[in-house]
Amino acid sequence: MLDFDQNDKKEAPIGVFDSGVGGLTVMREIMRQIPNEKLIYFGDTARVPYGGKSKETVTRYSRQIVHFLQENHVKAIVVACNTASAYALETLEKEIQIPIIGVVKPGAKVAAETTKNGKIGVIGTEGTVLSNIYPTYIRDIKQQVQVLQKACPLFVPLVEEGLLEDPVTDEIAKRYLAELIDLDIDTLILGCTHYPLIRDTIGRIMGSQVNLVNPAYETARELKELLEREALLNSRHPELGSNQYQFFVSDGAEKFKNFANSIIKYGILSAKIVSAEDYEGTSKR
Amino acid sequence: MLDFDQNDKKEAPIGVFDSGVGGLTVMREIMRQIPNEKLIYFGDTARVPYGGKSKETVTRYSRQIVHFLQENHVKAIVVACNTASAYALETLEKEIQIPIIGVVKPGAKVAAETTKNGKIGVIGTEGTVLSNIYPTYIRDIKQQVQVLQKACPLFVPLVEEGLLEDPVTDEIAKRYLAELIDLDIDTLILGCTHYPLIRDTIGRIMGSQVNLVNPAYETARELKELLEREALLNSRHPELGSNQYQFFVSDGAEKFKNFANSIIKYGILSAKIVSAEDYEGTSKR
Repeated sequence: MLDFDQNDKKEAPIGVFDSGVGGLTVMREIMRQIPNEKLIYFGDTARVPYGGKSKETVTRYSRQIVHFLQENHVKAIVVACNTASAYALETLEKEIQIPIIGVVKPGAKVAAETTKNGKIGVIGTEGTVLSNIYPTYIRDIKQQVQVLQKACPLFVPLVEEGLLEDPVTDEIAKRYLAELIDLDIDTLILGCTHYPLIRDTIGRIMGSQVNLVNPAYETARELKELLEREALLNSRHPELGSNQYQFFVSDGAEKFKNFANSIIKYGILSAKIVSAEDYEGTSKR
Repeated sequence: MLDFDQNDKKEAPIGVFDSGVGGLTVMREIMRQIPNEKLIYFGDTARVPYGGKSKETVTRYSRQIVHFLQENHVKAIVVACNTASAYALETLEKEIQIPIIGVVKPGAKVAAETTKNGKIGVIGTEGTVLSNIYPTYIRDIKQQVQVLQKACPLFVPLVEEGLLEDPVTDEIAKRYLAELIDLDIDTLILGCTHYPLIRDTIGRIMGSQVNLVNPAYETARELKELLEREALLNSRHPELGSNQYQFFVSDGAEKFKNFANSIIKYGILSAKIVSAEDYEGTSKR
């Protein structure tokens, strides 16, 4: 990044990526908490979902997207996908020079700090649960905690089918959450970016004594602190018409736009198609 | 294929591919109906599902897999995925010289031939329904029919979660199938390779007056006829230990093996990992 001076750097966009549309809940929080930033969102809609895929595959796909974002001169990257944060973040951190953060650590940190009875639940995709990354991070901060994980593979398709408030979603949620209720947890991490969209259902079933942690919120907060620390926070609002928010997907731009507009109130004018696998060989920076 | 004489050709394997595990229901039928054939199965588990993806993406992925199968000297190819048959088959037919068949045409043919009241239902993925390929093929055979299509995006995740006999699957099926019942169809095409696995649920909801068409069965039958016509049917059983059935996936070999063994009673000893996108550039044959 030698061709940038610090002011140019500050005004550079932040890259945000996810396996598909779920990461938009993280994007939304970043837009809200640091409204001066330019953002480039990439959703890997051609290869969604990542939740059931292996560490090797998720890492390869994530690396391609990071290369694409670097080609677009981003100053920092947010891995707005729990599975990719769980499987790929550590590897990617070593491969690039710009700051990169995931959604797992911020969520784990808040959960560890807020639990009173030391019993934390984590719900997420199969990949996130298998990676064991939430329990690892939580115990790095607070050793004496019990962490119970539960994979909820049907939540993503139910959300994408639009069944946010529905008896079927209630029934499936009751089954998935039963063990967590039995253990009497007081804190539950919504460890998949789709889950905040059924937060009401989950909250009703868990009961008001359980504190729901939304990593999207915590991630945006941590991103802001990171940018301040590195003197990368953009101090002035981008000029009108400067294309503050750009959206790229690997497939189905129209379909993405429709779903995206239901999550982000900002009107998404268009999304462009990019073939992520073309970035396999891009040189590391 | 000039380096093969007709006997070598007959003994060459048949390639069967799908977006993931669903095509195993087609594989199973082929194993049953033409037991002398060697088969190579490819499941694109890294990029599953195809159901919600665009025509361009499904065609690109299918082409890569066809290249992989051709590298393995298959004598014919079965597209054991409704979405890929709907979107990619016509393009692929023009690009290769060996016979290639999909699951759509055989299913459409039987439905057109067996309906008595001229009202046919089709259930499938979003891609299969949007492609409109079932109505097109059905009307090629019989003009005066009504075809009602319904996309059922939750069926695949429900099957993959193992909820084959479950009140939730019942409830979702009732919602999806309600319009088809109202129209009084007498024939219903199970237009996605996962659906035969919940055939009992679908049959119970539709009632015994509705004839369920399983394209897997019809495809195996049509494949047999095709091989006979082209003098490609293998007349003798492969020798013991000759690796009659081989399985390749693009991700998660162990997970595939477990699911596959629940569908195919033949013990699947192992599945090998292949990165499908590496076959992008292979020359056409």
